[in-house]
Amino acid sequence: MTQLCYTLAGFLFGGQIMQLVFNKLNGLLPAVIQDHQTGRVLMVGFMNDEAFRRTVDTGFATFYSRSRNKLWLKGESSGHRLLVKEISADCDLDTVLVKVEAQGPGVCHQGYQSCFFRRLENGEWKVSEERTYDPAAVYGN
Amino acid sequence: MTQLCYTLAGFLFGGQIMQLVFNKLNGLLPAVIQDHQTGRVLMVGFMNDEAFRRTVDTGFATFYSRSRNKLWLKGESSGHRLLVKEISADCDLDTVLVKVEAQGPGVCHQGYQSCFFRRLENGEWKVSEERTYDPAAVYGN
Repeated sequence: MTQLCYTLAGFLFGGQIMQLVFNKLNGLLPAVIQDHQTGRVLMVGFMNDEAFRRTVDTGFATFYSRSRNKLWLKGESSGHRLLVKEISADCDLDTVLVKVEAQGPGVCHQGYQSCFFRRLENGEWKVSEERTYDPAAVYGN
Repeated sequence: MTQLCYTLAGFLFGGQIMQLVFNKLNGLLPAVIQDHQTGRVLMVGFMNDEAFRRTVDTGFATFYSRSRNKLWLKGESSGHRLLVKEISADCDLDTVLVKVEAQGPGVCHQGYQSCFFRRLENGEWKVSEERTYDPAAVYGN
């Protein structure tokens, strides 16, 4: 139904709105979140069409939580929201790249600036940076 | 079986090899490919455990093609291979970030440097850059 509304909106407003492809991953697509200034990849989340639309409409990255099965405004509990600066789609329209200004000291719930804080070194995943905040102080224990 | 071998290898070599989590997406995980120098996100592919292992072992990004249902050495037909420089994993160990040196003029089969060549502008996806090569010359018509 939601998809139908967007399609109709496309017709009504006369735009050539190319539809994102959500059906390859059961209604979801990966969304790569990148710092708009440093270029650092901060996290990858999943969006369904409603999460994508909310991201566009509100200007704050919104995902679909696969573990909680519901929409998830990133930062709703921590306050560490992701202000959208630019959105791109890939050639197959099945992945989006969202450049953001990250509000707060980090996007990772484990206390790091980026979720990608482990680097592969000689076959082992090594933590390659320091925490930027105390997750217990933000999320509780 | 493959997973078992890696687990055994972990024990044998005494390393704390944290296993990537492949079971959230039917044996696959997203792999974000980023230019190691410019920081540009070039594409997102999917890897199963064998594709990941080959990526590590060969030093060239290898994916699992969801459309062809087989391993796919990126650049096997175009020659535009992705030389691995660094691999990171995210907090949940269900996504990897691969920094690469892209060999050739572009990674996108449509002739662009990056697959993310469309930007959202006023509700429409607009091509935001020029092609860097002629895909017909590389892939045929």
